[in-house]
Amino acid sequence: MDSLKQKILNDGCIVGNDIIKVDSFLNHQLDVEFLNLIGQEFYRRFRNQPISRILTCEASGIAIATITAQYFKVPVVFAKKSPSKNLDPHTYSAQVYSYTRQSNYEMQVNKGYLLAEDQVLIIDDFLANGQAVLGMAELVRQAGATLVGVGVVVEKGFQPGGAKLQEAGIHLESLAVIDQIENGQIVFRD
Amino acid sequence: MDSLKQKILNDGCIVGNDIIKVDSFLNHQLDVEFLNLIGQEFYRRFRNQPISRILTCEASGIAIATITAQYFKVPVVFAKKSPSKNLDPHTYSAQVYSYTRQSNYEMQVNKGYLLAEDQVLIIDDFLANGQAVLGMAELVRQAGATLVGVGVVVEKGFQPGGAKLQEAGIHLESLAVIDQIENGQIVFRD
Repeated sequence: MDSLKQKILNDGCIVGNDIIKVDSFLNHQLDVEFLNLIGQEFYRRFRNQPISRILTCEASGIAIATITAQYFKVPVVFAKKSPSKNLDPHTYSAQVYSYTRQSNYEMQVNKGYLLAEDQVLIIDDFLANGQAVLGMAELVRQAGATLVGVGVVVEKGFQPGGAKLQEAGIHLESLAVIDQIENGQIVFRD
Repeated sequence: MDSLKQKILNDGCIVGNDIIKVDSFLNHQLDVEFLNLIGQEFYRRFRNQPISRILTCEASGIAIATITAQYFKVPVVFAKKSPSKNLDPHTYSAQVYSYTRQSNYEMQVNKGYLLAEDQVLIIDDFLANGQAVLGMAELVRQAGATLVGVGVVVEKGFQPGGAKLQEAGIHLESLAVIDQIENGQIVFRD
């Protein structure tokens, strides 16, 4: 998605050789007009699939998933994060390791909002190590629902998340893949 | 907002005499079509104000604020919650007491995303004790910005948040005010 690559180059902020911050438009301040371009692009890529629900994870996936859902005309459910294991029998639950926080958290969805007949599209802002997406895929599995695919805005191609999803046979669409950050320059995958 | 009251009566879930759960459409599963009605209503109520930015708080305010921002054509910024005091000089920060969790947390916004010239509309899902909204108002104050008003979807009228905002001279618009929950019945304010 060329407009996204341009936006990342214009507005992104590079920290060291592996962190790219896009919180000026994607996950802290939200450029809602631009999020609509992102939503339209996800729709273009998944419009031929029978999607009945979009699943994301709090907090930074919510805005993108909500805007995207307007094009699919389906409900969103966002998984909640909890630091501790919750034994609530009304929720599906997956343990996820956060490399950022170097600790585990529990990701949960109320069983009423993820159904066996659902065709689920997972949407998230970033794909790096893949832990959050694999946690959401586990919630879909527990529900007996079908995972149609995963759409992420930015994939860090130099981290293993993309390969892990491929190994798991999951259809991934990344709107921009960053293969390298070197000397303050972002190298996108073609 | 009559359609909201009806939605709460149809889809809300009452727990005891003080908890009303609306997570089937507002803050876990998201009925995006209905969120657009909410966004339109906030726009109708604040359209004559010169709003330049919508401020909300993760996680459950994000979807409502994002949809609402589409009508105002302004950016959203969502305050992040952190359990501990963060001394980052690049953020405005307010300490907020959570009655739900019975502990304090820190609410933060990057200084680049809340400007002295901003005319801010705060949007949130619930108003109960008012701590989260007052925390956001404090961030606006630190930025030297102008707080135009506060829009909440559901106000629990039997808790002191509304009165606190009134005392602080803040313009509040609540789309539904619940005055009482008694014997499983919701009593709305007219």
